[in-house]
Amino acid sequence: MVGYSMNKKDLKDRLRRIEGQVRGLQRMVDEDTYCIDILTQLNSASAALKAVGMGLLDGHVRHCVTESIEQGRGEEKVEELMAAVGRLAGR
Amino acid sequence: MVGYSMNKKDLKDRLRRIEGQVRGLQRMVDEDTYCIDILTQLNSASAALKAVGMGLLDGHVRHCVTESIEQGRGEEKVEELMAAVGRLAGR
Amino acid sequence: MVGYSMNKKDLKDRLRRIEGQVRGLQRMVDEDTYCIDILTQLNSASAALKAVGMGLLDGHVRHCVTESIEQGRGEEKVEELMAAVGRLAGR
Amino acid sequence: MVGYSMNKKDLKDRLRRIEGQVRGLQRMVDEDTYCIDILTQLNSASAALKAVGMGLLDGHVRHCVTESIEQGRGEEKVEELMAAVGRLAGR
Repeated sequence: MVGYSMNKKDLKDRLRRIEGQVRGLQRMVDEDTYCIDILTQLNSASAALKAVGMGLLDGHVRHCVTESIEQGRGEEKVEELMAAVGRLAGR
Repeated sequence: MVGYSMNKKDLKDRLRRIEGQVRGLQRMVDEDTYCIDILTQLNSASAALKAVGMGLLDGHVRHCVTESIEQGRGEEKVEELMAAVGRLAGR
Repeated sequence: MVGYSMNKKDLKDRLRRIEGQVRGLQRMVDEDTYCIDILTQLNSASAALKAVGMGLLDGHVRHCVTESIEQGRGEEKVEELMAAVGRLAGR
Repeated sequence: MVGYSMNKKDLKDRLRRIEGQVRGLQRMVDEDTYCIDILTQLNSASAALKAVGMGLLDGHVRHCVTESIEQGRGEEKVEELMAAVGRLAGR
């Protein structure tokens, strides 16, 4: 139901796993693992990182942006939010 | 200043240009244009489409989402917004 | 088995459908369709366009790049291919 | 000139930096850094990871794929390559 929502512990746990994946990537490069297998692992780390980005964005919209709008000063937050979405969406 | 904002006319003009680009792509395929040149044109159409997506999202946040939050019923809109951002960001 | 392969007719048929989708998007904007519904349609057109890009790239690698390498002059084609992949992958 | 090419040392150095960035992200989450600033750092790590992916792919095409084609058994490698490109391009 909650979609992308993550609490602080979720975020940290996921980031710790991603750190481990990136360390694994170094080992794979070091051991001359087959490129395509390294790429598969890299794509998995990349997707996990994007999921954390979505989790952060979700929390940001639910708290910061919502609060700002409720207090009648949402304009600037919305501007900033859209810039962040644009970067996350790769443009 | 306004970042991604587009009015209805902007959106329609951009979509009409994208339609023209997609028609151009069909012609290029038909005339056996060099693949890499077709891909360049395709990427341009793709980026233009993503920009329209950002424009739509921007308007949506500024109007629908903001209004819903102001009226104390933002929860559902935020849920829906995040799902749309996730799809636009490619996950 | 063949993954992304598309023949000329496939490519043109898909592009014609995408052109129709983009035309549909203009209509949706014109009729003030709910933003999120327009975005859903836009993402579908965007994914379809990316699929055509993969189809073009696939054909390019199978024919142009393969031939160039077989003739001992693959270097330049590989350079060009990687640039196209980089653009398609959004960087 | 060389575009995306990276040697083993390049790849490892970049991955080590990305590992550091991901560790930095955990610290930022822990210290309740402003979401948008965390997202900026996350996007930077994400782009760096994608660049490594392009470097790996570039080496793979230049060596494995090229060799296989030269030896007249490129078909399978091209299949595998396109699947990897598709994943990297996010579909």
